[in-house]
Amino acid sequence: MNVMATRPRRLESYVHGAWAAGAREGVPLLDASTGAPVAFIDSSGIDFKAVLGYGRETGGPALRRLSFHERAAMLKALGQKLLDFKEEFYALSAATGATKADSWVDIDGGIGTLLSYASKGRRELPNTRVLLDGDVEPLSKDQTFSAQHILSPLQGVAVHINAFNFPCWGMLEKLAPTLLAGVPAIVKPASQTAYLTELMVRRIIETGILPEGALQLVCGSVGDLLDHVEGQDAVTFTGSAATGRRLKTHKAIVENSVRFTMEADSLNAAVLGLDAAPGTEEFDLFVKEVAREMTVKAGQKCTAIRRVIAPRSYSEALIEALRDRLGKTVLGNPAEETVRMGPLASLDQREEVRARIRDLSADAEIVAGDPANPSITSGDAVAGAFLNPVLLYCDKPGSAQAIHDVEAFGPVSTVMPYDTADEAVDLARRGKGSLVASVFTNDPAFAEEVVLGLAPFHGRVMIGNRVSAKTSTGHGSPLPGLVHGGPGRAGGGEELGGLRGVKHYMQRTAIQGAPTLLSAVTGRWLPGAEARSGGEHPFRKSLAELKIGDQLVTGTRTVTLEDIEHFAHFTGDTFYAHMDEEAARANPFFDGRVAHGYLIVSFAAGLFVDPDPGPVLANYGVDNLRFLTPVNPGDTLQVQLTCKDINPRASAEHGEVRWDCRVTNQTGATVAQYDVLTMVAKTRE
Amino acid sequence: MNVMATRPRRLESYVHGAWAAGAREGVPLLDASTGAPVAFIDSSGIDFKAVLGYGRETGGPALRRLSFHERAAMLKALGQKLLDFKEEFYALSAATGATKADSWVDIDGGIGTLLSYASKGRRELPNTRVLLDGDVEPLSKDQTFSAQHILSPLQGVAVHINAFNFPCWGMLEKLAPTLLAGVPAIVKPASQTAYLTELMVRRIIETGILPEGALQLVCGSVGDLLDHVEGQDAVTFTGSAATGRRLKTHKAIVENSVRFTMEADSLNAAVLGLDAAPGTEEFDLFVKEVAREMTVKAGQKCTAIRRVIAPRSYSEALIEALRDRLGKTVLGNPAEETVRMGPLASLDQREEVRARIRDLSADAEIVAGDPANPSITSGDAVAGAFLNPVLLYCDKPGSAQAIHDVEAFGPVSTVMPYDTADEAVDLARRGKGSLVASVFTNDPAFAEEVVLGLAPFHGRVMIGNRVSAKTSTGHGSPLPGLVHGGPGRAGGGEELGGLRGVKHYMQRTAIQGAPTLLSAVTGRWLPGAEARSGGEHPFRKSLAELKIGDQLVTGTRTVTLEDIEHFAHFTGDTFYAHMDEEAARANPFFDGRVAHGYLIVSFAAGLFVDPDPGPVLANYGVDNLRFLTPVNPGDTLQVQLTCKDINPRASAEHGEVRWDCRVTNQTGATVAQYDVLTMVAKTRE
Repeated sequence: MNVMATRPRRLESYVHGAWAAGAREGVPLLDASTGAPVAFIDSSGIDFKAVLGYGRETGGPALRRLSFHERAAMLKALGQKLLDFKEEFYALSAATGATKADSWVDIDGGIGTLLSYASKGRRELPNTRVLLDGDVEPLSKDQTFSAQHILSPLQGVAVHINAFNFPCWGMLEKLAPTLLAGVPAIVKPASQTAYLTELMVRRIIETGILPEGALQLVCGSVGDLLDHVEGQDAVTFTGSAATGRRLKTHKAIVENSVRFTMEADSLNAAVLGLDAAPGTEEFDLFVKEVAREMTVKAGQKCTAIRRVIAPRSYSEALIEALRDRLGKTVLGNPAEETVRMGPLASLDQREEVRARIRDLSADAEIVAGDPANPSITSGDAVAGAFLNPVLLYCDKPGSAQAIHDVEAFGPVSTVMPYDTADEAVDLARRGKGSLVASVFTNDPAFAEEVVLGLAPFHGRVMIGNRVSAKTSTGHGSPLPGLVHGGPGRAGGGEELGGLRGVKHYMQRTAIQGAPTLLSAVTGRWLPGAEARSGGEHPFRKSLAELKIGDQLVTGTRTVTLEDIEHFAHFTGDTFYAHMDEEAARANPFFDGRVAHGYLIVSFAAGLFVDPDPGPVLANYGVDNLRFLTPVNPGDTLQVQLTCKDINPRASAEHGEVRWDCRVTNQTGATVAQYDVLTMVAKTRE
Repeated sequence: MNVMATRPRRLESYVHGAWAAGAREGVPLLDASTGAPVAFIDSSGIDFKAVLGYGRETGGPALRRLSFHERAAMLKALGQKLLDFKEEFYALSAATGATKADSWVDIDGGIGTLLSYASKGRRELPNTRVLLDGDVEPLSKDQTFSAQHILSPLQGVAVHINAFNFPCWGMLEKLAPTLLAGVPAIVKPASQTAYLTELMVRRIIETGILPEGALQLVCGSVGDLLDHVEGQDAVTFTGSAATGRRLKTHKAIVENSVRFTMEADSLNAAVLGLDAAPGTEEFDLFVKEVAREMTVKAGQKCTAIRRVIAPRSYSEALIEALRDRLGKTVLGNPAEETVRMGPLASLDQREEVRARIRDLSADAEIVAGDPANPSITSGDAVAGAFLNPVLLYCDKPGSAQAIHDVEAFGPVSTVMPYDTADEAVDLARRGKGSLVASVFTNDPAFAEEVVLGLAPFHGRVMIGNRVSAKTSTGHGSPLPGLVHGGPGRAGGGEELGGLRGVKHYMQRTAIQGAPTLLSAVTGRWLPGAEARSGGEHPFRKSLAELKIGDQLVTGTRTVTLEDIEHFAHFTGDTFYAHMDEEAARANPFFDGRVAHGYLIVSFAAGLFVDPDPGPVLANYGVDNLRFLTPVNPGDTLQVQLTCKDINPRASAEHGEVRWDCRVTNQTGATVAQYDVLTMVAKTRE
């Protein structure tokens, strides 16, 4: 169906496997620029308890049957498919007040996040269903009792309650880690822009790529859904602090200890360095960044710069430069090419922002922009929610309150002067916790002092300077690999951050037991677990034949002084501890001449390698190599090589095998311990 | 002062640097066995807002001035000193109803946790004030914009509200990670056993080891303290779910997004394996463990086994064996040597437990023990809170409710039969989330199925079998290195888990910027950051002289076919890819004969090592070695070695230096990349 042709139309929810309209016609949603109705929204009549149950019983098991690599492949296929519908998404996005650049952040940014998680899943996760977390913890000296932390997917549903400003990115940045973890989701977009989320979910469902129940959508109120959440569910919220607090203290969420994450308002600061005087590249970059953050999405971004902290002596020049730049921002209907900033999401939103500007005016004076009389090039001046950028200035920010407490969720920022680096940090901290701060400086000492001062109060701190001018992703952009969230006022949440975000939907469990049983549970061999040696060399086994615990105990080799001297001259490594008995003795770690560490691992390979062509294709690396006991001339080496971990690739004829390699001397002491990483073919020949 | 001689006495709080009695005499605290008053408790008149302020302004800065190693040394000194006062602690502990074995868990277990964190801090953390979290995230291809996550200590105070059952361990297990993180604490013990906590804090303060303000103690109510917590504070709670919920939804905690962690009640299960029939070692171990968990601390442990899930056909034998064993538990005044189980903490607690047994009786019948008539060998039968172990049996646990919902916080468990592994998992999950479960089996397949089934609902799962019989730390013991906490009913919290527990008191922040500035902030060199090469070989610099970014660019060496053949024959590694052109070509990763990976790193060492004695003492290991491009005969190698990380030890004349090592070929392609780990002296000598 062509959504565009039928609007205004009634949005539907996608619940327990079918699209369903609400029982009533619902509330009209209006185009932000023209005031024309775009859609109607209503979710009455939906059985929300059943929606949760459907996710838990249908979506969850289907996702958990897939491995991380299979889920990653699913996200990749989905992301690539969604790119085909971009034009349709962009066309509808304009109705939200978004310019093309704004829509790019939302649509391409959202799909990019999905693809980024797909790639991380394939590259950084094993092809398994359970994740190991951290190293083995030996709990007994004789290796009969050990522990390993694991992460397993929650058995419930993730309920994502999203904000109106990013109807696509806001959904996808939460959906990607949730699905990769193996957890189904119920998405509830903010009503104001739900039509775009609904369109994207429609296209997602049509692809048939996600297993049934993995994604449900509620357009409209979630009714009594939260009354039915349980201990294995998770609820995330992005939006106003007031709503967030109400959800966080919801009876069922509290009583069942439901995981709850929140991103609320945030008075993000940008600090201009003491070194970044007018005329420097950093000053110009700062002006550009502040103006951009004020105008992108008409300032309706949780990461936008609300507080501009600048050296007192540069403030006048800064205000001048910002006034100039903001004055050139073309405001109008974002469907038009020349428009650089669209309207706010609705007339109500504009009234809200105007009220907050009045609050800020208690502390600060307006130095650019007129909140009352928008100047537009297109769009409906009466029905469109237009507002020009408004810059304020507060001369005594150290004693002011509102500028550190009031968030005007629109194109509004306040400039506040400082004298010392300490003072700049103190002002930023008065925001009581923000998603992000930025510091524009080219002075390493200033960067160190201010960034470390800001860090405890922020989820992200960006440093801007001339070197990163072209490549910086900017103050306002959360990235899939970096955490997004902030302490205190920002809600105390954490999202994204690469695999950290996936783990938010998993339960960490410490498993203790005898190594053999632990190994059966975790799928990884560990010291003390049963091993099978003798028989065929394990390098002759394909992935199909190899099992963890398959072990090779090699023959021995005695290291002679001639070996050491020969190796030294051959490689050029004539370090005195290998060459000079007296000098070696003077070294606090050695009792006399010792073999090179690289000689030990080279001889070890000579002992364990099987020379003929076979399933083991290459040694592509070594992890955690430690030389534990010095090897002196006359010492005899032996290697115990044990298959530790087998990770077949989904899309290749081989996979990674990790071997535990322990090199011992004639007394049984371990002289070197490391993991040998090999590529092994799935089948023989 | 000798606390013992003066009891019953008025407990004091230690706040803003002084011991302070409450304004009123307070409530009497009674000996659990005799009913005699031990102490009076009251905290009225304390200015709690000032207590928080004192911690934030005095304790916080003092702790943050110390490095992780300095804080670890402080914990070690404190733990060792506390061992001197053990006898005094044990003597007072008996009044709480604890036997000597119970006190060992609390006192030695608590001090052991402190010492364990001291050791982890020294071994697993760098000697810095800020932690790096995860790897560098390159954000631009040209290395002009990158990111690194860091963790910095919260700037507030941790408020620890503890349970009555472990007055020492309960304090120390939270205090150790908090102080190691660099965060001051305010401890509020449960009133019933606060006299023991007060004694220990008195000894801690007397040592003078902790900086002033790092530890405050409130004996009695915390009054309006929670009204004043802020976004940089953290509140932890161990105790009843009802109180926990009230705290979690406290206005200031919610409004300021204060970190809140909770351990509440938990209906921990123990599962007897289908293979563990009567007569097997696992059956006997199971009986011992269940009986022990029921009687240690008179079952007043958040980790005690409440639900005993056993194969239906073994249930009768199991009940018989447990009845026997429990019947032999000598109940009485724990001050006496022969007593194996003491009273509950108070008569009120016993009334509470009896009421819960009545609730359980809706589903289950009592098969051992008489809740109404305790049989004791010593202590006051009227004033002492004695209760013999009570075992219940529920024949139809799949349809019962109370046995999965009601926690009797005493020596009470319910046996419930199952038929299949699936059913056992389902029964355990009906507890809706627990701190711990255990599975007694010697069958790897049963262990795998049941443990993975239990994991999402538990913070810890222990497997018991014959192999770990002697070394197992048991179902009920949280360990410093393993996470303690559970989802759902257990409160959704997580504590301990080694360094994970330290990070709970730190803020994670993604720092983005040009590598040189990022390097200044994080103290670690990263690719793209400025490096200084030329001049003196960096191996000639002591820790005092070396700086991150010091770099050596070596001469070159061409690898010949003769080198490869020579190395193969010398080491014995004659893998075909090095020896046979045709076979090598058939390998999917190579175009022809290649050099050994170990040859590359050996030649690299030959290029970068400075042979003469100097500050670099040893190469003790290699991390993350990856062979990225095959090296063919005729390729020319060159090494770029850059000082990445300098970590002087607090208590030695040397420290660790990590070098970024990049081996390139004549085209500039990286053939190998790894970290070289060296020990370097603090000064030239």
